[in-house]
Amino acid sequence: MGKLREPLGELTDSCGLPMALEAMGERWSFMILRASFNGLHHFEEFLEELGIARNILSNRLTKLVQAGILKRAPCVDDRRRIEYRLTDKGLDLLPAMIALRQWGERWGTGIPSNPVLCDERDRLPIAQLVLRSHDGRTLGPKDLCWIDENDLDNKESKHQPADIRQLVGGS
Amino acid sequence: MGKLREPLGELTDSCGLPMALEAMGERWSFMILRASFNGLHHFEEFLEELGIARNILSNRLTKLVQAGILKRAPCVDDRRRIEYRLTDKGLDLLPAMIALRQWGERWGTGIPSNPVLCDERDRLPIAQLVLRSHDGRTLGPKDLCWIDENDLDNKESKHQPADIRQLVGGS
Repeated sequence: MGKLREPLGELTDSCGLPMALEAMGERWSFMILRASFNGLHHFEEFLEELGIARNILSNRLTKLVQAGILKRAPCVDDRRRIEYRLTDKGLDLLPAMIALRQWGERWGTGIPSNPVLCDERDRLPIAQLVLRSHDGRTLGPKDLCWIDENDLDNKESKHQPADIRQLVGGS
Repeated sequence: MGKLREPLGELTDSCGLPMALEAMGERWSFMILRASFNGLHHFEEFLEELGIARNILSNRLTKLVQAGILKRAPCVDDRRRIEYRLTDKGLDLLPAMIALRQWGERWGTGIPSNPVLCDERDRLPIAQLVLRSHDGRTLGPKDLCWIDENDLDNKESKHQPADIRQLVGGS
């Protein structure tokens, strides 16, 4: 990946990855997340389907809510009940979960997980996640380099989401 | 994601994800992996750059070699020295690492990591990883469904890699 490197001795705010690992890396948190993506919303559903102890479930749900990944809301058909729903931040974990899953399928048992994750429109398995350039070319590890933010070409600004450019004071 | 669900109470061979989390989820293992992707190969390099204790580094390198993610090989310019290189299995973790990183960047500090991961060819930041259908359409969480392997349309076979079809006894 070229000569420039990340600061490798740090796991700090300068790298976005530690936060993601913290949210996903713990076994029960991961199982609750996976169940949420599969449409479970209620404390009792998680309890029954996951075979998790009540106090651990309660603890992990609280942490996931604090992390902004799940939100507590009154149930639509019974407002006295509370349900847990994925926030936009939580939903946005899907590519990372699928990338990890696909890697495990390819290199783990060699047998694809069943059931298979498909596109609802044509009912065919989704594609493997791959790195792509801004214009859609597939990239491998050898196609990558690190560039200091200040050395980025001006062309770059049109490919960054506007809100991020504002946050870092860019044009 | 539809009515059909994964078996949510299990973290077994039927889901490829636990293996991936085990490889990446531990703090030091992750830092060694990240350093490997940044071109570090030698025990002494890891030791110096990561600020990791010698015995922990030794332990984690052994585990990553046992998991088939790194391999030990004689150094090209000095055959008496050993270096650690990512295997194909290890290199294949890149999409998952980048997906987690991008999520952390978007939802963590709000500030993109610096340096920025770019395409070496045009020196522009790589694209965000997104889920895609087999024919390249972008998919969100609501576009997905689970389909039992046995109910998959025959059309599906031409979109699966041949080796996987062979392993599961498909056509």
